[in-house]
Amino acid sequence: MVMAGHPLAGWRIAIVGSGAMGCYYGGRLAQAGCDVHFLMRSDLEHVRAHGLVIKSHAGDFSLPKVQAHAVSEEIGPVDLVIVTLKSTANHTLAQSLPPLLHAGTLVLSIQNGLGNEESLEEWCAPEQILGGVAFTCINRVGPGVIDHSAQGDVTIGAYRGASAQSVARVAAVFCASGVRCLVEPSIAAVRWRKLVWNIPFNGLSILGGCVDTSVILADEHLRELARGLMEETVAVAEALGCEMPEGIVEKQFRVTAGIGPYRPSSMLDYEAGREVEVEAIWGRPWRSAVAAGVPAGRLAAVYHLICSMVEQRR
Amino acid sequence: MVMAGHPLAGWRIAIVGSGAMGCYYGGRLAQAGCDVHFLMRSDLEHVRAHGLVIKSHAGDFSLPKVQAHAVSEEIGPVDLVIVTLKSTANHTLAQSLPPLLHAGTLVLSIQNGLGNEESLEEWCAPEQILGGVAFTCINRVGPGVIDHSAQGDVTIGAYRGASAQSVARVAAVFCASGVRCLVEPSIAAVRWRKLVWNIPFNGLSILGGCVDTSVILADEHLRELARGLMEETVAVAEALGCEMPEGIVEKQFRVTAGIGPYRPSSMLDYEAGREVEVEAIWGRPWRSAVAAGVPAGRLAAVYHLICSMVEQRR
Repeated sequence: MVMAGHPLAGWRIAIVGSGAMGCYYGGRLAQAGCDVHFLMRSDLEHVRAHGLVIKSHAGDFSLPKVQAHAVSEEIGPVDLVIVTLKSTANHTLAQSLPPLLHAGTLVLSIQNGLGNEESLEEWCAPEQILGGVAFTCINRVGPGVIDHSAQGDVTIGAYRGASAQSVARVAAVFCASGVRCLVEPSIAAVRWRKLVWNIPFNGLSILGGCVDTSVILADEHLRELARGLMEETVAVAEALGCEMPEGIVEKQFRVTAGIGPYRPSSMLDYEAGREVEVEAIWGRPWRSAVAAGVPAGRLAAVYHLICSMVEQRR
Repeated sequence: MVMAGHPLAGWRIAIVGSGAMGCYYGGRLAQAGCDVHFLMRSDLEHVRAHGLVIKSHAGDFSLPKVQAHAVSEEIGPVDLVIVTLKSTANHTLAQSLPPLLHAGTLVLSIQNGLGNEESLEEWCAPEQILGGVAFTCINRVGPGVIDHSAQGDVTIGAYRGASAQSVARVAAVFCASGVRCLVEPSIAAVRWRKLVWNIPFNGLSILGGCVDTSVILADEHLRELARGLMEETVAVAEALGCEMPEGIVEKQFRVTAGIGPYRPSSMLDYEAGREVEVEAIWGRPWRSAVAAGVPAGRLAAVYHLICSMVEQRR
């Protein structure tokens, strides 16, 4: 239990999309004493019976009792919805989101790529919507078992219209639960910064033949292509007014080498025959490049090749 | 036998690289009565014993007796060398070419991609060198058996310094043997025109998972990427001063659809674990694009991905 006046006091929180990401961040919030409700599908029965086990480089913990639900109606209106769905499942929000909303509910998308906040506008007012990006390595390794192997910061920002107070309140909740949360004026710039990593590494891990990041770094051709993809992504972002930090390309290589062999989510999805976030990670960014008139042929090639592979599953 | 004064009279011709292409064009010249010597490796014994069988949409024929040789020294100096080697084997010219040359020998490269005429300059004067491009579908289907399924024209031109008479004489030899031969002022422009086909179709037949051209045409993503690759190639060629015909991109799609399912040579090479002409078809064109300052990201991506696949044989 948390005391009145504490940032965690009194807020009901729903996690929509309780995969690895949702379970990790929701788990941290619950561990800190928040009233967290997980909307779950595949692991629902297991988590109801056994709770969550989080193995984290920032400290392991487990939650033997978790409020896990099959449908949003069981949860009802909450103060904060954290959407950690795969972007390919955004159409399911039509069912799951409305029962969770009251007029003041804030909805934070912590999802990959572009287009997620836009899709929330169907059900929420712009001032209710926040965007977030998790720079982290988190995978589900078994039913209710999450492995958090590196990093973990969350960066959030207003989408369009959310007040500074709303953003600050959400940031305070994360910080109070032990998750470092940065607030940025432009969530768009943060999304593009993450794409500078996702576009090459998620893409080439698939196109390189289902390989991990260490293979990409060790292969001079894939590494050179990764660099070119990053440079294209930076150029598109800057053309759209999103300032990219000096040396961002070199930093991606440095950080990725430091993490060690890592299997990006899109590659795991592809390998397992699940849906791949093709539009959010490559399709929308490529169309943004075309609209901005910025050459991004490597991105076009990666997008079309992955589309073709996913559709044909050759 | 051909009569004195006839274009075919008196010329000794050597075919270096007696694969499908070399056997087809050399076979046509021999059939017409030319003194043609084939430098051969793999099919040598078979062809010495059984000759060549050419199945051609322009008319089948067979040559029971063929002058096939293991080394150039057996052939000695000739008037025309036709190089139909795979470009990856150009280093073997150091051994095979010198014994075939006299001061007036003309050397015609009918090879894929960029860099072949340049590599001939190590052994010949520029005025001896001609470039040629075959727009055709020819495959070896068995020892000494060649299948020529579509087209067949050869386009030739001076490289740098060869006289108009030299070019005209070679053209006359082809025409007299029933092969339509066009003479172009710039062989570079012709090479780039062929690359407008080879870059997308050879490339995507590998990257699409060892597929034939009909699969590329039927897959909206591969087709769109093929179009983008063609547009990049045209832009690079034009920046280098090689004029491309109006509507060349649409024409590639039309002609390719007309040919029916076709398995490009690079894909067959890749599939069989043989060397792929990566530098001639993608590497040098990409470096030309970089040098000319023309964006060619799709070409870069295809080049790097194929390099990686070929080196790893994943």
